Formats: sequence, structure tokens, C-alpha cells
Amino acid sequence: MISRMDLLQSLAIENEKKMVLLVMDGLGGLPGEDGLTELEKAKTPLMDRLAAESELGLLSMVDVGITPGSGPGHLSLFGYDPLTWSIGRGILEALGVGAHVGAGDICARGNFCTVDADGVILDRRAGRIPSEESARVVEKLQKEIKSIENVKVTFYPGREHRFVVVFSGENLSEEVNDADPQKEGLPMRWAEARNEKALRTEKIINAFIRKVWEVLKDENPANGCLLRGFSSAPHIPSLKELYKIKPMALATYPMYRGLARLVGMEIGNAGETLEQLFDAVGNYWKDYSYFYVHVKYTDSRGEDGNFAEKVKIIEEVDRLLPKILDLKPDVLAITGDHSTPSFLSGHSWHEVPLLLWSPFARRCNAVEFGEKACSAGTLGRMQGDKLIGLMMAHGLKLNKYGA
Amino acid sequence: MISRMDLLQSLAIENEKKMVLLVMDGLGGLPGEDGLTELEKAKTPLMDRLAAESELGLLSMVDVGITPGSGPGHLSLFGYDPLTWSIGRGILEALGVGAHVGAGDICARGNFCTVDADGVILDRRAGRIPSEESARVVEKLQKEIKSIENVKVTFYPGREHRFVVVFSGENLSEEVNDADPQKEGLPMRWAEARNEKALRTEKIINAFIRKVWEVLKDENPANGCLLRGFSSAPHIPSLKELYKIKPMALATYPMYRGLARLVGMEIGNAGETLEQLFDAVGNYWKDYSYFYVHVKYTDSRGEDGNFAEKVKIIEEVDRLLPKILDLKPDVLAITGDHSTPSFLSGHSWHEVPLLLWSPFARRCNAVEFGEKACSAGTLGRMQGDKLIGLMMAHGLKLNKYGA
Repeated sequence: MISRMDLLQSLAIENEKKMVLLVMDGLGGLPGEDGLTELEKAKTPLMDRLAAESELGLLSMVDVGITPGSGPGHLSLFGYDPLTWSIGRGILEALGVGAHVGAGDICARGNFCTVDADGVILDRRAGRIPSEESARVVEKLQKEIKSIENVKVTFYPGREHRFVVVFSGENLSEEVNDADPQKEGLPMRWAEARNEKALRTEKIINAFIRKVWEVLKDENPANGCLLRGFSSAPHIPSLKELYKIKPMALATYPMYRGLARLVGMEIGNAGETLEQLFDAVGNYWKDYSYFYVHVKYTDSRGEDGNFAEKVKIIEEVDRLLPKILDLKPDVLAITGDHSTPSFLSGHSWHEVPLLLWSPFARRCNAVEFGEKACSAGTLGRMQGDKLIGLMMAHGLKLNKYGA
Repeated sequence: MISRMDLLQSLAIENEKKMVLLVMDGLGGLPGEDGLTELEKAKTPLMDRLAAESELGLLSMVDVGITPGSGPGHLSLFGYDPLTWSIGRGILEALGVGAHVGAGDICARGNFCTVDADGVILDRRAGRIPSEESARVVEKLQKEIKSIENVKVTFYPGREHRFVVVFSGENLSEEVNDADPQKEGLPMRWAEARNEKALRTEKIINAFIRKVWEVLKDENPANGCLLRGFSSAPHIPSLKELYKIKPMALATYPMYRGLARLVGMEIGNAGETLEQLFDAVGNYWKDYSYFYVHVKYTDSRGEDGNFAEKVKIIEEVDRLLPKILDLKPDVLAITGDHSTPSFLSGHSWHEVPLLLWSPFARRCNAVEFGEKACSAGTLGRMQGDKLIGLMMAHGLKLNKYGA
């Protein structure tokens, strides 16, 4: 049987129609005492008006009862079944600090540590040095270490004692065990190849670590490093080759830019504020046909357990929406990558509300955009990874299947 | 791609939260002249109040249009896709008479028959002797036949001329053809192994049948027996090993206790009446985290075609519900294993109403628990085998998938 992805690819045609996927991270919620969720409580006159002319539904990103992380949630929205296409922890961490991990590269999560003269690890986190201190050390290292045996080395500072390193070169392998004794007071445990093909990578990694120790020998407490979670970027076919669309990602947080880059989107300058993010869409409007616009703060406020503030962010998005609507997109989808109910202060398994507007929407005459309206919407419950194909249909970017 | 079962297993975490699955057998119905189904007609103030705070939906146990037997219906509720995991007719018959079929055991459905001196089968059902007569014969046999070649033999009486026998020993095989000529007036057809590994079992079965004939030689008309449907217990991974839960089954009918035992539940003393069944939950509350509570009579009255009496049973369950609610379960699911509309006097393919209560329910403000309310519920239509994972999500027993 042909997969949905292959089917869509075989039917895809290029046209000038513009599609926008507006993701409010963690949008879905749970009702408070008055029975209204964050989205239902928010005053969103524009989205409510849109809802009346749209198709509404609920998206399941992975499966019933499964709480998606940001990786699986976004893969699903981008059209990749998250149980088939997965992203390792190391890669996601790298994306989170804005690291670029290209095809064939290997990345790893690093800790600065304190090591004694005999190579015993005294403190695996170097006293949790502050982020600024860590950034200084990373800069010093990058100046001294640019490559190891023709393999390019790139450092990215993280929070506190954490950093990310990317190795770029030929014939690298992720099949290498962690260079980390896991416990303090033990001698260093060096990287170890899991098979013969990874032997060269093992050698490079251990030479790299020795070099780091050497450069840092006069530092205190961060006079060494450990490396874990060696990972290569997953090979994911790009949206461009799959669907003949020109995708542009606008996101203020590095992890989401990274996720978009993994599926072959180009990355625009989204600025730093919500206002700048929405303004950015217009800046790239002419040259792209699919816009992924990511609003982080709905999730952040939900994670904080702050119902009222999550409501405010949603209202702010509604206020900014004209910046997109004035561009007259042909297809507009508004949804989330998962639910983050304030009541749970975390991601949850609840389905995510979806509003899909196009001139060809079989509109359901809803009076507002909210979980209950979506539950009764014309789209019903849908797997998240079907959304991109549905958007393409509304953008008249899919040929008929069969004669 | 990872299966849902493996996915749930990889995400499952243990905690102290208590989940209750209350199964009203054959709950789903069809409307009478006034448009109300049995469940809608029943006065169920408690379930209606719960509905307002719950998620409602409709469960499909096998597939659209497929009428489930009790085996597939329950497997689905317990989280096993009934098209992947099946239970042979022989095993189900054995479970129905309360037989215990352990790992490695073989069971068979037996008929008492009338056989002549030359071994010709005159009557395959021994004139359908009454159940009491059959029970007397079974007792006599059990006294005389305890084992055959170190294989333990256990008899269980059934209705009329039927009984069940379980063989317990080493290296037994179910790959043996029926010991039954199928037609009357033909000579006995002895058990036949389908392959070499089953030769020992063939020998034991035929020795067993000869021994039965010998013990019964002075009986009339039940002076022989036939055996069909040799089956071993299917290997089904237990709920405990899959989901880190401690499951307790409370059911007044043996077949349902047997089904629960197949998936590794422990079996409690459920008494005989509905009142005793509901009281039993409290008796085991402390030591278990998942309770399967089975109410048989909704199905029985439906099978009788008795709409009014099925309504009464549902009302009785509503009256007894406080015995469970007072225990303060963290998650409560109320549903059936299939529909048994009185109008059809039998199982049917119609989806089964589901009420799922937890503090994290995205409640749909329904005003009653009934088929129409469930059809408009926030859960929509769902495969029955997804229920257990959704219950675990609501019990906060599942980690996030992916970072």
C-alpha cells in the first residue's frame, strides 16, 4: 500500500498560493471552574470571526493518550508521522542552543567538569558554573580548537555548565558510547566505539576531550569536559522535495528553528518579540509559499501553571493576527503542537484545537475558536500529520488521485 | 514503526493512582418508539451528573460493522487489538465453565456420546442428557481418572451433554485433530497429531478417551465421549508486565474471570449478587491500581429482548455506583464490551457508549450518559483498545513521548 507521504508527493503541484501554519505552542487547555479553557476564555474576536468561516477540528499528534514532546508534536504538524520519524535527545538539545547539525555531522551534549591530576572526575558539573562563565570558557575553547584531524569542531554555549559541540567531517559515526563516568570520584571514562566503523570517531572524540582539558588546565573549577549523547541529524526528506512548496520558518526560539531546519525549511529573522515575529511574515511573503510561524509563550505560561497569562498571550496573538490576514493568505491553519493545560503545568495528551481557513472551507458556522467548538467541528478528530496535506488541498496544490 | 502497545509499555510509570473500568456487558442499545435507548431511558442521576464532568465517546471494539463476541470485546477493553490477539473457541468454552487453563495446558470441549460394542458412534450427544446427569457422570469420571501417563486430567461439567477437560503436563501440543467422527453411524475417529511434536499428546488423548469409555461402559446412554477443539492458552503479555499496573478482576461469571486471568489479572471474590460485586471493590482497594468490574445482567436482559428489564439493571448499577465513587478513584471508565440492543436480542455492531471521568477530563458539559450524548462527546469515536492507554494518561501513568 502506498504511504500517505508518497501519495501526497505523487499528487503535489506547484502554484503561487500562500499557506500559513500559525502554531501557538501548547495551545490546548483544560477548563477552569466556569467550564472554559484558556482558549475559550480569551477574548479573540478575530479568531472567533474566522472560526465561523473555517473548518474546525481536533488534532492528535501521536496517538490517543500520548503526551507529545515538542519534537514529535512539530514533526506531526509538518506531516511526518512521529512514530516513524524520531529525533534523538542529543539533536534536540543541539537545536535548543541553536546549533546547526548538517548531514553527516555528529553532535554531543557537553558538561564542563572538574578533573584532578590523575584524571579522576571530582565534579561532573564544575560546580554548576553560571552561564556567563560557561560562555567565556566556550569562547576560549573555540579560539584554540578549530579542528581535530580535519574534522571541524563548533562549540555552542548552553545554560550553566552545559554546552553543545558539533563535529563536521567525513565518515563520522554516532555509534559511540558516552565519554562520562556517570559518577563522581571515578576515573574518566573515555568514548568507546560500538563497532569498527566508529573507531575513527572514537579516536577523534577522545583527542578532542584531551585537547579541551589541556586548554582549560589553568581554569578552576571548569578544567575539563564530558561528552554524552553522540547523535547525527536524522535523515528526513525535506518539505520542498516532498511537496514542491517553498517553506519559511519564523520562530523566536532556537529549538523550533532547528526543528524547521531538519525538515528543510529556510529560516527567517523572526526578531525577538511577538510583534516582530508577526511583522516578519510580511518581510518574506513574496518568496515563499508555506510559512511556519511559532509562538512560544502560550506553552511557557501553561508550563508556569498561569491560566490568566496564557489567556493574555492568546489575546495578544489575536490582536496581532491582522499582520498575517492583511497579506491575504490562501490557506491559514491556527493550532498548537500539543496541549499545555495550565491546570497540569506541563504538556498533556489532550487533542489540540485546529482552525483551518480557506475560501474552500466547508465552514461549520461556529461562533468561536475553542476546544468545544473544535470537538463539534466539521473536521472531527484528525491525526496531526494529515494537516499538511489538507492545507495543500485547500491551496489547490494537489492533483486528483486516479482518473 | 513502534506499535501502540510497545509505545505505552516504554512510557509507563508506576504510581499509586487507582483506575476503575466498570463494564456493563452489552451496554449499548437501540432506541424504542420514543427515540430513547435503554441507557437513555434509565433513570441514572449519578451517571448523568458524572457525565457533565467527564469525557464522553463511543468505542468501536473491532471495526465498523463488526459485532464482537465477549472475547474480542473484552480483549479490546483490556488494550489488546482483537484482530491481533485472538482466543480460540475451545479456550473460551473452558473459561465459560470456570476451567483453569495454565501455560502449557491443553483443554478440549467434550461431548458425552452413545457408542456401540464395535466403537460406532450411535448418538454424538447421548440423547442430550440433562446437565445434572452430566454432572454426576463427570464426578464419577474425575474419581476414576486423575492422570494419564503423568499428565493431570481435570474435568469440568457443562450444560447438557457437554463438559470440558484440561490436560496439564509437559510437552503437550494443541496440534491434534478432533476425536469425533462428526456424523452418527460412523466408527469412532480417534485423535490424530498434525505433526511429530504432537504424537505424544495424540497418544495421551486416545488413551484418555478409551479410559473414559471403560469407566462409563455400564452407563446408558452416556457410555462414551468425544473431544474437539484442542487448545492451549494463548500467550498474551500480562497487563502487569506491559503497563506496571496491579490489576484486579471482579466478575460474578466464570468466563469473565477467565478472560481477566488470560491477561494476567488477579481474581477477587465478587460474590454472587450485584450488591456483593460492588462491595467487593472496596475489599481489594488498597492493594491494586486497576479494577475491572463486570456486570453481566445488562447483556442477559438484552439477549432476552427485554428492554424494560435491561433499563432496570442499568438503574440498579447507578444506585450501587456510590460504593465505587466513595473510594475516590482517580480514573473511572464506564462502558460495555459490545452493544446488546433488546431490539436485536443479541450482540450487535453498534459502538459502545463510554464515560471517562478524571480530574483531567476535558469535560463536555453533557447533561446525561447515553448514546446520543456520547456521539457528541469530546472523545469522539475511538478504538476500544486505546482505552487503557487513555485511562493511564488520565492516571498520570505515562511519560511524555520524545523531548
